[in-house]
Amino acid sequence: MARVALTWLAEPGNRIVWQLVQAHGAEETLDRLIGGDIPEASLRAAVASRSSSGDPRRVAEYALRRAQRLGARVVVPSDDEWPTGVQSLATLELDVGGRISRDVRPPLCLWVRGSRPLGDAFERSVAVVGARAATPYGLHVTADIAYGLAEQEWTVVSGGAFGIDAAAHRATLAAGGFTVAVLACGVDRPYPVGNAALFEQIAESGLLMSEWPPGAEPLRHRFLIRNRVIAAATAGTVVAEAAARSGAVQTMSRVVALNRRAMVVPGPVTSAMSVGCHELLRRYPQARLVTGVAHVLDEVGRIGEYLAEPARGGDHVRDGLDEESALVLEAVPRRGIAGPEQLAARAGLGLRTVLRRLSLLEIKGLVVRRDGGIALAALARTPVARTDTPPRTRFPA
Amino acid sequence: MARVALTWLAEPGNRIVWQLVQAHGAEETLDRLIGGDIPEASLRAAVASRSSSGDPRRVAEYALRRAQRLGARVVVPSDDEWPTGVQSLATLELDVGGRISRDVRPPLCLWVRGSRPLGDAFERSVAVVGARAATPYGLHVTADIAYGLAEQEWTVVSGGAFGIDAAAHRATLAAGGFTVAVLACGVDRPYPVGNAALFEQIAESGLLMSEWPPGAEPLRHRFLIRNRVIAAATAGTVVAEAAARSGAVQTMSRVVALNRRAMVVPGPVTSAMSVGCHELLRRYPQARLVTGVAHVLDEVGRIGEYLAEPARGGDHVRDGLDEESALVLEAVPRRGIAGPEQLAARAGLGLRTVLRRLSLLEIKGLVVRRDGGIALAALARTPVARTDTPPRTRFPA
Repeated sequence: MARVALTWLAEPGNRIVWQLVQAHGAEETLDRLIGGDIPEASLRAAVASRSSSGDPRRVAEYALRRAQRLGARVVVPSDDEWPTGVQSLATLELDVGGRISRDVRPPLCLWVRGSRPLGDAFERSVAVVGARAATPYGLHVTADIAYGLAEQEWTVVSGGAFGIDAAAHRATLAAGGFTVAVLACGVDRPYPVGNAALFEQIAESGLLMSEWPPGAEPLRHRFLIRNRVIAAATAGTVVAEAAARSGAVQTMSRVVALNRRAMVVPGPVTSAMSVGCHELLRRYPQARLVTGVAHVLDEVGRIGEYLAEPARGGDHVRDGLDEESALVLEAVPRRGIAGPEQLAARAGLGLRTVLRRLSLLEIKGLVVRRDGGIALAALARTPVARTDTPPRTRFPA
Repeated sequence: MARVALTWLAEPGNRIVWQLVQAHGAEETLDRLIGGDIPEASLRAAVASRSSSGDPRRVAEYALRRAQRLGARVVVPSDDEWPTGVQSLATLELDVGGRISRDVRPPLCLWVRGSRPLGDAFERSVAVVGARAATPYGLHVTADIAYGLAEQEWTVVSGGAFGIDAAAHRATLAAGGFTVAVLACGVDRPYPVGNAALFEQIAESGLLMSEWPPGAEPLRHRFLIRNRVIAAATAGTVVAEAAARSGAVQTMSRVVALNRRAMVVPGPVTSAMSVGCHELLRRYPQARLVTGVAHVLDEVGRIGEYLAEPARGGDHVRDGLDEESALVLEAVPRRGIAGPEQLAARAGLGLRTVLRRLSLLEIKGLVVRRDGGIALAALARTPVARTDTPPRTRFPA
């Protein structure tokens, strides 16, 4: 109850409130704040102003009753299910300065709808976030990544916004996976209302979570405060699309400062909704370019557990050949035969090397001995054929 | 003549030939090679095989006569116009091992069509390269970058292939800029033939350049050898599009090893022609993501001469506000008025801070004093209005 009241008196993340709670406990801190014993002027003024509109304890009791009717619970750090990741916010120091950047301390409590314990839900979790005004491209990539994460039994975490957030939740639900929506308003308050049905689905098979009590408004600055919880509670954050100067930069600065995996999906340079992504990749050396779920799993998975396969071109017969063998194979005429000396001259290699490489090529079934010379085997013929536009896969301009 | 003959006896870049020329001069090296005095077996065999098909000196004389008829010239390191950048290849050591990787020594000579001196042409030059099977997206971005480089009087350098290479040349010509095509065959030999008209245009207003004499065939391995010249002669290389496992990786490894600027254009993760680009960005920390010519100029230009402007979102009235002022502005009701105490409570800030910030907001014309309270000014109203989907530009989910 004291933690609920404190969250009402000062917005979550407040550094001074958090320090007082650490030093004296929530009950005593609440007494101090209500008594006006506050070591900072701006907090003192904010608390006084808030107190003048109601009794903090009664507000908290009302919120708890409302939550009970709703089937929501409040979770505090001493609970078994408290997600340990958010505690990293206790020591987070951001370089950027300014009031908000200092006020990134851990939540005092979390309101939850959904049955799974928080800690369990966040243990293997990745945030997938991005623009509201997402493009079909961004929605497609988001759905692919979220679906793939769900298939590998990773929890997908996002906000509740239109666009990328909603796409991430929907794809996770479609995969039968587990999704968490971290809201900047009460868990009983569908915001945006267009996502109301989605929130109900998430509450049933996933989790709705918020630092603010039921009924709380989605004030603009609360999104900023909320974002730190998404960054801290998960193993990493994927930004799927972001406009120029979007909040993705703020999110990523925290992800990086928290030593979580910062992942960014690139897009067409002609798309306004990828400008922010490209800015992130240019600004943060720690941000990793990811093009799909394999790369994401590669970042957040235990080393070796998920190893993204290198991108592959067509399976040309030359693949896997060393450079010398490739040169020799290239030197073999398309039609007819050639002697080893001719091949050596054409390939610019020594005769001994050519003979050694020919043995290898023969074993691989790429060349055959015929009429006292060397000819291309049928297997090697098509891709080796020199045309106006030789395949560029190995030797491109 | 000796350098021409040597380039015929062994492919350009050969480490041993280059070392001999450095130690004994081209004439004596040619004598040695013809005499079979060669310190490596594979080179000895290659030279013997090549010599058996003709006299190197006569081949060289024929090539020089052919060039003269064509209006082409041969340039050697002692010429004033020799491009100094290629000399960096003298000490290039690549980690990858294997014969080709060691044979990256500077050209012995360069065949040129076009009047401008080579050194002058390459002094401010950027390579723009990429896939033959380019997409409309890649062609568009390439044209934008090449056109912009030409406008800033940078030389655009590329190969002669279809796709990105041709698009780079065409856009440069369209901008009235200067373009160099570095070929893997004779400068008299349109390859691919579909680009013949383009090559003629380049020869007239730019430069066609090759290490191989007129008439030389575009053998596949020559593209690989040629690429080192593009990497070394320019200030940096932009890869606009590249398929998975494309030669762009080889090119970039050299660009990076040569300490030139490695630049890569991202694209849709759903495009096969951007897979190679994304692999480069993942593989090489030195590779810089570029989304347009401003970023390219930022990399290759003298520091401060070109400074890429940060990407900008819409010009919201809040832009430039500090966080506290933004919070106060957010707290002002959409309709009607509020007192400073109400604003302080709503914004979670101290009264003194709110009063200070209100003065600032008033000066900026964002709030007005009315009826003993604070109201939004018309200027601030539209973007400040809280809707179902508040603009995410500054405070996104």
